[in-house]
Amino acid sequence: MPLAHDLASPVQRETPDTLHTKEWLRRYQRVRQASERICEPLCTEDYVIQSMDDVSPPKWHLAHVTWFFEAFLLTPFQPRYRTLDPVYDSLFNSYYETHGVPFPRPRRGTLSRPTVADVYRYRAHVDDAMAELLESLPPEHAEEILRRLELGLHHEQQHQELLLMDIKHILAQNPLCPAYRGDLMPASEGGMPETAWIEHAEGLHEIGHDPHGGFAYDNEGPRHRQFLEAFQIANRPVTNAEFIAFMQDGGYERPELWLSDGWQQVGLEGWRAPLYWVKREGTWYHFTLAGLRPVDPSAPVVHVSFFEADAYARWAGARLPGEAEWEVAARNVAMRGNFVDSDHLQPVAAPTRADAPGQLYGDVWEWTGSAYRPYPGFKTLPGTLGEYNGKFMSGQMVLRGGCCATPADHIRLTYRNFFPPHARWAFSGFRLTREA
Amino acid sequence: MPLAHDLASPVQRETPDTLHTKEWLRRYQRVRQASERICEPLCTEDYVIQSMDDVSPPKWHLAHVTWFFEAFLLTPFQPRYRTLDPVYDSLFNSYYETHGVPFPRPRRGTLSRPTVADVYRYRAHVDDAMAELLESLPPEHAEEILRRLELGLHHEQQHQELLLMDIKHILAQNPLCPAYRGDLMPASEGGMPETAWIEHAEGLHEIGHDPHGGFAYDNEGPRHRQFLEAFQIANRPVTNAEFIAFMQDGGYERPELWLSDGWQQVGLEGWRAPLYWVKREGTWYHFTLAGLRPVDPSAPVVHVSFFEADAYARWAGARLPGEAEWEVAARNVAMRGNFVDSDHLQPVAAPTRADAPGQLYGDVWEWTGSAYRPYPGFKTLPGTLGEYNGKFMSGQMVLRGGCCATPADHIRLTYRNFFPPHARWAFSGFRLTREA
Amino acid sequence: MPLAHDLASPVQRETPDTLHTKEWLRRYQRVRQASERICEPLCTEDYVIQSMDDVSPPKWHLAHVTWFFEAFLLTPFQPRYRTLDPVYDSLFNSYYETHGVPFPRPRRGTLSRPTVADVYRYRAHVDDAMAELLESLPPEHAEEILRRLELGLHHEQQHQELLLMDIKHILAQNPLCPAYRGDLMPASEGGMPETAWIEHAEGLHEIGHDPHGGFAYDNEGPRHRQFLEAFQIANRPVTNAEFIAFMQDGGYERPELWLSDGWQQVGLEGWRAPLYWVKREGTWYHFTLAGLRPVDPSAPVVHVSFFEADAYARWAGARLPGEAEWEVAARNVAMRGNFVDSDHLQPVAAPTRADAPGQLYGDVWEWTGSAYRPYPGFKTLPGTLGEYNGKFMSGQMVLRGGCCATPADHIRLTYRNFFPPHARWAFSGFRLTREA
Amino acid sequence: MPLAHDLASPVQRETPDTLHTKEWLRRYQRVRQASERICEPLCTEDYVIQSMDDVSPPKWHLAHVTWFFEAFLLTPFQPRYRTLDPVYDSLFNSYYETHGVPFPRPRRGTLSRPTVADVYRYRAHVDDAMAELLESLPPEHAEEILRRLELGLHHEQQHQELLLMDIKHILAQNPLCPAYRGDLMPASEGGMPETAWIEHAEGLHEIGHDPHGGFAYDNEGPRHRQFLEAFQIANRPVTNAEFIAFMQDGGYERPELWLSDGWQQVGLEGWRAPLYWVKREGTWYHFTLAGLRPVDPSAPVVHVSFFEADAYARWAGARLPGEAEWEVAARNVAMRGNFVDSDHLQPVAAPTRADAPGQLYGDVWEWTGSAYRPYPGFKTLPGTLGEYNGKFMSGQMVLRGGCCATPADHIRLTYRNFFPPHARWAFSGFRLTREA
Repeated sequence: MPLAHDLASPVQRETPDTLHTKEWLRRYQRVRQASERICEPLCTEDYVIQSMDDVSPPKWHLAHVTWFFEAFLLTPFQPRYRTLDPVYDSLFNSYYETHGVPFPRPRRGTLSRPTVADVYRYRAHVDDAMAELLESLPPEHAEEILRRLELGLHHEQQHQELLLMDIKHILAQNPLCPAYRGDLMPASEGGMPETAWIEHAEGLHEIGHDPHGGFAYDNEGPRHRQFLEAFQIANRPVTNAEFIAFMQDGGYERPELWLSDGWQQVGLEGWRAPLYWVKREGTWYHFTLAGLRPVDPSAPVVHVSFFEADAYARWAGARLPGEAEWEVAARNVAMRGNFVDSDHLQPVAAPTRADAPGQLYGDVWEWTGSAYRPYPGFKTLPGTLGEYNGKFMSGQMVLRGGCCATPADHIRLTYRNFFPPHARWAFSGFRLTREA
Repeated sequence: MPLAHDLASPVQRETPDTLHTKEWLRRYQRVRQASERICEPLCTEDYVIQSMDDVSPPKWHLAHVTWFFEAFLLTPFQPRYRTLDPVYDSLFNSYYETHGVPFPRPRRGTLSRPTVADVYRYRAHVDDAMAELLESLPPEHAEEILRRLELGLHHEQQHQELLLMDIKHILAQNPLCPAYRGDLMPASEGGMPETAWIEHAEGLHEIGHDPHGGFAYDNEGPRHRQFLEAFQIANRPVTNAEFIAFMQDGGYERPELWLSDGWQQVGLEGWRAPLYWVKREGTWYHFTLAGLRPVDPSAPVVHVSFFEADAYARWAGARLPGEAEWEVAARNVAMRGNFVDSDHLQPVAAPTRADAPGQLYGDVWEWTGSAYRPYPGFKTLPGTLGEYNGKFMSGQMVLRGGCCATPADHIRLTYRNFFPPHARWAFSGFRLTREA
Repeated sequence: MPLAHDLASPVQRETPDTLHTKEWLRRYQRVRQASERICEPLCTEDYVIQSMDDVSPPKWHLAHVTWFFEAFLLTPFQPRYRTLDPVYDSLFNSYYETHGVPFPRPRRGTLSRPTVADVYRYRAHVDDAMAELLESLPPEHAEEILRRLELGLHHEQQHQELLLMDIKHILAQNPLCPAYRGDLMPASEGGMPETAWIEHAEGLHEIGHDPHGGFAYDNEGPRHRQFLEAFQIANRPVTNAEFIAFMQDGGYERPELWLSDGWQQVGLEGWRAPLYWVKREGTWYHFTLAGLRPVDPSAPVVHVSFFEADAYARWAGARLPGEAEWEVAARNVAMRGNFVDSDHLQPVAAPTRADAPGQLYGDVWEWTGSAYRPYPGFKTLPGTLGEYNGKFMSGQMVLRGGCCATPADHIRLTYRNFFPPHARWAFSGFRLTREA
Repeated sequence: MPLAHDLASPVQRETPDTLHTKEWLRRYQRVRQASERICEPLCTEDYVIQSMDDVSPPKWHLAHVTWFFEAFLLTPFQPRYRTLDPVYDSLFNSYYETHGVPFPRPRRGTLSRPTVADVYRYRAHVDDAMAELLESLPPEHAEEILRRLELGLHHEQQHQELLLMDIKHILAQNPLCPAYRGDLMPASEGGMPETAWIEHAEGLHEIGHDPHGGFAYDNEGPRHRQFLEAFQIANRPVTNAEFIAFMQDGGYERPELWLSDGWQQVGLEGWRAPLYWVKREGTWYHFTLAGLRPVDPSAPVVHVSFFEADAYARWAGARLPGEAEWEVAARNVAMRGNFVDSDHLQPVAAPTRADAPGQLYGDVWEWTGSAYRPYPGFKTLPGTLGEYNGKFMSGQMVLRGGCCATPADHIRLTYRNFFPPHARWAFSGFRLTREA
């Protein structure tokens, strides 16, 4: 997934005075350590693999998020800073073309050097320089530095999620079915009640980030008004059991259920089930970060594309919510859920209520029916950091709510994630909506 | 372009009583003759060529629109009807998969038979049977027959426009630069004034087809409400002179102006100017249906992709209108313009007023910034005709207003055309919008 | 098939004195008429199609062979000559890169103009100019002109064969299964006896064109010595019945029978039978120039690739002959057979003798086990005509003996045809060889 | 390069009595250690990379050669043997389709597990079992076991060479230009005299492996007779200085010098110099296993394809030798040269004599003009080991003589190496031949 987010600017943030830079440094260190903790279970060899063009080797992720601080904070604001190797500036530039020529993305998996140890050295080198910078902030740049710092930390958190989905994809290629970790939290048992539908009357709504509401990526604003016709939204995501019913009803064989592009994809890639599913002696298993496991009927279905979500919805006589509908439905819901911090690293069944939407946050990124396009009044920022502020706003669909690999303090009501409609390696699922 | 339109159903239409079937037959014949008139200037050889996957051979168009009447009217409602050849049912089925297996689209250009003469025989055969059907309408099916008839006629008109854009593409491949016709209407001379901006206040609007307003494709409904923030829209499309200024300012060489997918396309296809443009001794020419001609600075730019339109708008500090904005701006504007009936077959300069939008209809299909997605409450129809009613609603952008190849009585305020963002062989241009 | 032959020079030929130029003109006209006679059964539409990259539209063949006379005889030796259109010089140049930039081969099927009538006008125009040139030969160039004339006539004969195989491929794409001609000569009935093996003792042989033996392409020389170990060669080509036995024994499913590249091709293209074969209710049919016909068990199998021939031979415990073995076996055999002049346009069963090889000439081009490489001492000629004299000598295999589409006076003992090992649309079959 | 060699069987070998099995075990251990010594300078990360489809990750090489002993010796002849993991049997099967379904070659670089340490454990496990097997040879299988052992050792030596060329390719992708080793032997200085030509009279020769001559791959036999016309062969390979002269004379821009397929490759891949060459400030450098180094004018040119060798030869008015010519020229030449044991790992200049061919062995594999096809009488062996004995005998060219990465005791006069004509990552060069 291209990260337009990288480039986002906070719509509003606290001034340097409101938070001591010491706290910023602690926060910096906390985020940085979290990335390394994610990689702890890896073998050196795991760090090197690029299992498809969309996946990056874990060591590349670790280096790229580091480069972000180097390129946008140290190089401009720390005159004494010296890079470890000038070639890194191209190797770890993801797609900032006005910054320089990035090393070609599909070739990231051909680089054995810098080694994993080199990359950790690079991280330590940048961390030392960052600590030094934050400990003696040049006052004339303090505001801009902290603005970029906050962005850089969100950027790194976003890559933590990417790391987990990429690691899963890498290990899933391997006929040895290696588990990433054997000690993940198990899901609790429990059935899944019938879907209930939450009603929403028609009305005019403010959508998008509230400029007084703390950090957000620029694509979450400007806040603007949208009129929504009345709608009903399901109280929980579609489950594996429900998705299996769709499969058993010929879901993958009936062209009338599919968008034309989706039907073509079904044929090209031979889709017959969600990604990572295999059938053994009549039972569905799927590859998880804990290895190959039976599919839990009550858990939200995951690793489905927008095309599959859309086909399911048509089959079920419903549709996907628009992103504004999702946002309205989530407006007064507490931001709790199965995030990375729960240590499941897999969506799990959860109790839901018939009168309130459940599992909006965490578990699975929920495909919406909205194409990823700019909000009215959206403007790209000046300079390289803002260079591409909307450059991914074509050919992709919006997803909402975060997933089981998202850091809990990284998600927001207005957060707009996006993937191409055929993508399946993210932790993506969906919930249904219908007319009132 | 896949024609989801094919499948559309009129949201509302007059009853069989309101129009004598004789009038319907006359209308049928008028539309059918128009298709053949478009092909009159062709050599037999021109009818056979498929210059790229998206283009169909002209004889295929002539046969496919005929098959539509055969498959959806004669076969179900005329028991005595006998087809000329049962193989035609697959050859001329475009994409109706529940009807049968369509002959593969990219192979249409490998079929020398049926010959052009055979295709005209097929048309006459179906025309005779249609006349017979309309002259003695089975009363129990009369309403459905006329409903499908009206759809079939709009379908054929839509293919008339496709015929012209495909013929242009076919002839443009040829180093001999053959003109389609030497007797097209010339454009009148005339400068082009500065762009003026028409203001629109914020407000809640009804968008989409009015169910009491005559025929429309189903994707134009349901009528629903949208809130729009205040905006300004240009009083005319962007001209060739303006687009040349963009080119001269490095428009095709500056990644920061482009969507990421668009920039990739620029590299892959080596775009340096709109499609059909060539530079000779410092002057820009373009291939037109009248042959190679100098580019008219005052005429609307045409044969640009959404990506080029979007990059130009960014360069110009503006953006493309949303389709609802376009519809609001066009609401009270007379539906006049340079259509196929003007016999230019090329966009031309036109006088505009500073206080009213000009050239909204005709000349060029205008790219909007809206992804082609269903309106709230949109439902697909039952049966084969409705099988794929929304199946093209991913990966495409909406265009509005018709072009110089559109029949004047085929266009509507609410008409939603759509193409992939990289497509350039339609008569596609754009106008600018900006925040108020 | 690229025609390195085009470029060949006669190893030896009669002087201008030995043949009156009138006879040359008659021969020219005879060959030219034969090309047009082949195209007589075509509809205009058939002339335009390029059914795959390797196939050229029939009107392109007719124009290209004409261009050959224009480019290599009229332009250099007839100062008064004026071309009909200078663009033709690129359009109809096949691959002579020092002559100019040829129009891209895979785009030949996108050209509707010049029309078929234009191409016949072009032929008449060149024929008139050629008659004039031959009637008043400039003495100082007479020898070179006649040398090139003879080459041009062989070149055109070669394209007559290509025309027939390309026409077959074009018509075979069409679900209507149109016959090229309904009046072809039927095969006579008759069983096919067991294969007999003709013995050849070891020995040193002269291989290649005898410089005193009339016209030959340059790739047939120089004559040189080869030592052959003793071998046995079959008295006839492998038949359809035999090939069906191979198919029934799992021939297409057993990787151990195939060259690695061949096995990959089987998978990629889903080969299960020779090209043009279809099974209907348990019986094998194949598309022929007379339409869809039952496969004749006794006729030589045709439209198989080198890979299929090689796999069959391995299955049969034999191998394909080297081209020198074939030439030695054919040395004292009369050059009779089922050529284009027999008007079958399909291989047919023929009586054979146990003590002499049958059907060496005509019926099917026979794949040999020899890669197409230069003979020792082979040299390319100076100038454009010789520019590429060996340029196709990689990646192809040699075939010998001509086929049912070859003009009888075009074939020779030493004639080296060549195709890539996966090609199947030529009239290609094979016979077996084994160690003595 | 596919290794048909893998499968070869010795044409003749010493009986088990002639060599004590202890000596075999020592030889086994020596070869096995050599593979590991080659990998010593690698980082763990280097072992994992597959830089193109033709390259295998070094850890795959180490495991595959081990699998060879497991699959063909331990599993059939050592009943007590237990594999470490049954999945290895597919992962490390290269292409033996009757043995089982090999893991797809182009996906070898997606496997992080088994780790490098796991692979070394696998090697030790198999080595222990092999020692046990050899120490108590079952007498009834002793001959077959030693036959396969010898084949397995040659197989592993062949992979040692592949390891070095693959490691070079892997490191060469990296903008950091990492050296494989910093301590390689430097070349000695020294000019390069003019080419001298060694004459060979015409004659009948015995070609191929002498069945009384020790081990050989099966493709080197049967020994058979070939008649050669008189020829001259150069006393040394073409040098970098000579190849630069070709480049400066427009060698890569002149289509008339190239085979058609080669010219297409030049365009597709933008060839302008041998693989690994870069020009910096007017000087040519190339990437070597010692890092980026200036090109030595007197050393043999290396990393050129057959197409480049062939084009150079045409430019020079010469040609490449046939493989029989090469073998005749090398017949009485001592098998000395710059092999892997010299520890240059790069071709180097060497003194030559005008009256004897130099550098036939070592330095560069020499492209011949011979397509890789079976010798007369060649038969594939029964069983999996012989399954594909000739399966690579299409589409490739023969190379002779070994290179700077070949173990000295692995090469033979009759050794037939082969690569596709476009391949460049082997240590491939060439020498010229011409008619007498």
